[in-house]
Amino acid sequence: MTKRPLDILDQVLNRQPVIVSLKGGREICGVLQGYDVHMNLVLDRAEEKEGETTRGIGTLIVRGDNVIYISPSREDTAKE
Amino acid sequence: MTKRPLDILDQVLNRQPVIVSLKGGREICGVLQGYDVHMNLVLDRAEEKEGETTRGIGTLIVRGDNVIYISPSREDTAKE
Amino acid sequence: MTKRPLDILDQVLNRQPVIVSLKGGREICGVLQGYDVHMNLVLDRAEEKEGETTRGIGTLIVRGDNVIYISPSREDTAKE
Amino acid sequence: MTKRPLDILDQVLNRQPVIVSLKGGREICGVLQGYDVHMNLVLDRAEEKEGETTRGIGTLIVRGDNVIYISPSREDTAKE
Amino acid sequence: MTKRPLDILDQVLNRQPVIVSLKGGREICGVLQGYDVHMNLVLDRAEEKEGETTRGIGTLIVRGDNVIYISPSREDTAKE
Amino acid sequence: MTKRPLDILDQVLNRQPVIVSLKGGREICGVLQGYDVHMNLVLDRAEEKEGETTRGIGTLIVRGDNVIYISPSREDTAKE
Amino acid sequence: MTKRPLDILDQVLNRQPVIVSLKGGREICGVLQGYDVHMNLVLDRAEEKEGETTRGIGTLIVRGDNVIYISPSREDTAKE
Repeated sequence: MTKRPLDILDQVLNRQPVIVSLKGGREICGVLQGYDVHMNLVLDRAEEKEGETTRGIGTLIVRGDNVIYISPSREDTAKE
Repeated sequence: MTKRPLDILDQVLNRQPVIVSLKGGREICGVLQGYDVHMNLVLDRAEEKEGETTRGIGTLIVRGDNVIYISPSREDTAKE
Repeated sequence: MTKRPLDILDQVLNRQPVIVSLKGGREICGVLQGYDVHMNLVLDRAEEKEGETTRGIGTLIVRGDNVIYISPSREDTAKE
Repeated sequence: MTKRPLDILDQVLNRQPVIVSLKGGREICGVLQGYDVHMNLVLDRAEEKEGETTRGIGTLIVRGDNVIYISPSREDTAKE
Repeated sequence: MTKRPLDILDQVLNRQPVIVSLKGGREICGVLQGYDVHMNLVLDRAEEKEGETTRGIGTLIVRGDNVIYISPSREDTAKE
Repeated sequence: MTKRPLDILDQVLNRQPVIVSLKGGREICGVLQGYDVHMNLVLDRAEEKEGETTRGIGTLIVRGDNVIYISPSREDTAKE
Repeated sequence: MTKRPLDILDQVLNRQPVIVSLKGGREICGVLQGYDVHMNLVLDRAEEKEGETTRGIGTLIVRGDNVIYISPSREDTAKE
């Protein structure tokens, strides 16, 4: 049972927010409304995190070549 | 109801200004007059922000590979 | 007996966790659930390591151009 | 009324100087004499600015992948 | 008698370990088990060197765009 | 009267030296003997400048992706 | 009499050593035994220079995207 990377994105369209980690240390959280083969993304109700600051950005088109990973369901439980 | 990233751009052509975040920390705001598949953009009445300084640049052709994201409607409400 | 790089990935699908070394010094460990020709990866039960900190991230789609290497079976025995 | 990014360049061929912002902080000003689909540019009577210094460079072929943006008509009115 | 770069790799498949120099200063040594046109590599019994530290990594798939060079037979005799 | 960027190069083949500005701050001066669509260049009687130092390099094949611009006729008159 | 960049390489196959300047400041010297359209190179009796240190590396496959330039005949006469 293999999953194609882009098929996973289909499963989270218009669902719970996804976390998108971008090159350069930025992280954006939002509801995935669309994507294409380049991993260009449409995010709704997006929020951008840089260090401790979060700011709302509404709708967003992210150019795919900036993406490091997309996490549909991050638990975010820090262990040391 | 999936939205293709480039279709979103159609909806904001010649409307309210969009914010374009560029690699290297620059941000440009302007009215989107055109685009192509590479995310090359034409912006009118553009303004460039670097840190605290804003300067008007009139019309602008942005090469798509510099784009991080395009925000058609940024609320920009900083939370901490 | 030659092995094609992507064929190796087939052998570890849904098996023991793989270690993925990313550009910029990050390392992600998780069960490989899928991949494509660009080395885009789906990782399940993923954990991200940066220096001494590990955090769980659940499922993850990694964009292939960030990958340095994928290690299906790292012994990780440091010699000096 | 949509404008394609490269069509805009047609309108300024052999007209007033354009400003070309390059990756790495350089800026070149010159009369656009030609371009191609990669945004390779031919600039005539070009001048290069780095910080406070301007130097004349005559004719110039710029490789397109260095371009951040091209401004056919920059007002350059700094606000603070 | 011209040699195509990838043909050389055929000659060292499953032979003595090769040294792979990666962007960012890493060096990996291992037995080449496979490769493709992108220079994606499969290395077995791999060891990674960073400065003075060597660690075993077992089998490894290296994404080709990280490769600087591959040395099938390095003498490694430092002259000054 | 539009000029295609690569056509300009035809006009300076085997003529006066051109100046080639490379990514990373290097500058090479030489007689253009050939080029291809990638802007790979053949320069003869080439000289490399880094800061204040100039050294002769004879013939040179430059890989096109390093090129920022090519100047067939630089006046090089510094204004302040 | 135009010369295509890759044709020049044919003329130095299995002849005097060429100097290959790589991104990141490395320089490799060796006898060119082969190449392909990506400028992937096979170098024999190669030596790597970093600053003042030279070390022999035997045979080498260099991935083309690391190449800045190839010099079949460098005079290397430093002027100041």
